[in-house]
Amino acid sequence: MTYCVAIKLASGLVFLSDTLSNAGVDNTLQVRKQFTWHVPGDRAICIMTAGNLGITQAIVSGLNERIDRCDPSEKTILNAGTMFEIAELVGDEMRRVQDRYGPGIAARGADSSASIIVGGQRAGGRPRVFMVYAEGNFIEALDDTPYLQIGEHKYGKPILDRIITGDTQMQDAIVCALLSMDSTLGSNLTVGMPLDLAVLRADMLEFEQQRRIEADDPAFRAISDRWSSLLKDAFGVMRAMPI
Amino acid sequence: MTYCVAIKLASGLVFLSDTLSNAGVDNTLQVRKQFTWHVPGDRAICIMTAGNLGITQAIVSGLNERIDRCDPSEKTILNAGTMFEIAELVGDEMRRVQDRYGPGIAARGADSSASIIVGGQRAGGRPRVFMVYAEGNFIEALDDTPYLQIGEHKYGKPILDRIITGDTQMQDAIVCALLSMDSTLGSNLTVGMPLDLAVLRADMLEFEQQRRIEADDPAFRAISDRWSSLLKDAFGVMRAMPI
Repeated sequence: MTYCVAIKLASGLVFLSDTLSNAGVDNTLQVRKQFTWHVPGDRAICIMTAGNLGITQAIVSGLNERIDRCDPSEKTILNAGTMFEIAELVGDEMRRVQDRYGPGIAARGADSSASIIVGGQRAGGRPRVFMVYAEGNFIEALDDTPYLQIGEHKYGKPILDRIITGDTQMQDAIVCALLSMDSTLGSNLTVGMPLDLAVLRADMLEFEQQRRIEADDPAFRAISDRWSSLLKDAFGVMRAMPI
Repeated sequence: MTYCVAIKLASGLVFLSDTLSNAGVDNTLQVRKQFTWHVPGDRAICIMTAGNLGITQAIVSGLNERIDRCDPSEKTILNAGTMFEIAELVGDEMRRVQDRYGPGIAARGADSSASIIVGGQRAGGRPRVFMVYAEGNFIEALDDTPYLQIGEHKYGKPILDRIITGDTQMQDAIVCALLSMDSTLGSNLTVGMPLDLAVLRADMLEFEQQRRIEADDPAFRAISDRWSSLLKDAFGVMRAMPI
């Protein structure tokens, strides 16, 4: 499985994904599920994927092949005019891949489900984030919905619901995304380290941070340990509450 | 949907369930999903149900009809010799009801899935808790698994994983179950107040607490508000952590 979360703030976008993929519990591999494209001064785009790995890798490869073909008549992530057009492009690629492999996968009783978060900013536009469904249609994170999640989203949702609003500061959103991931890692064995983090500040058109957080990353370990200790302290206060 | 959690401690058992049932989002009703049976000095039993409401209500009614028939040759919750036999009895009733209605429900493309937590203590035995699957088989909460959940279990799992061990004190487990429910209520609209709480202290053979917690219950509101405030304070400390 997978857990990916994107947070949309007035100040920009935060993307966080895990890297564990599994077919059953004894066939696990580490795979990147976060992909970025960047044209300085023009656009910075991030895609995160969940679901059937053959499907999502085919979509990302298809998007890159379009770029590599250098056919000016063909729309790509690097030449699309708006973030909305980029979401449409990802949705079209989803539909193409699902049409090609979905029926064969279903005939074997397997699941071709997949979902993709695509976000970023194009020069002249606002930072936007979309979630593309297996059918190729998509929804957008608007002011009332400051985050989108794919994969094992339930474990890490309560902390997002408690903390995140559109006005949350960037640094707070990064920490909150890491705590949301930390709760998921602690409760679900199919989500695993390392993590990929990308941070895009509004109107910079380049990623301010883009890093892989390994299992032994001291800053992440410190955040995880401190949160665990703070929660236990907070729970200690709760013990005295009458019920 | 539903969220129910049972916690098994050295000192006894805690049962907590919500009461919201929904078919779609516009057809909701308040239904009890927690049922208890008590024979002073002999046994105290609690059942909590999740899944297809027609199925689970038929199971509970079937268990009660067995009791009402007063046929000494028929095994019931009130005459079964052990908690294991009671779990078998619930599993048998699950299989009977699934055999009767499951195929017809499946033929209409609907879902007869259901799961039941059954726990308690019989004189001479230990407190035990089981989770009965739709197939009628079941698992037991042992020392390594101090809690069992049914329904929308993911939102409220991280706090249980952080706090609960077999050695947790009863009062702490009650508060933790309420916080686990509180996180679920905050993140999933299909789980709703009021709540039903039952507490069985080991070897007492009667429920020490058994109460309905209404939406405006001052103690529950105080716990929910205090936890929210403590989490925000804890998050405030996290802001300063480097990443």
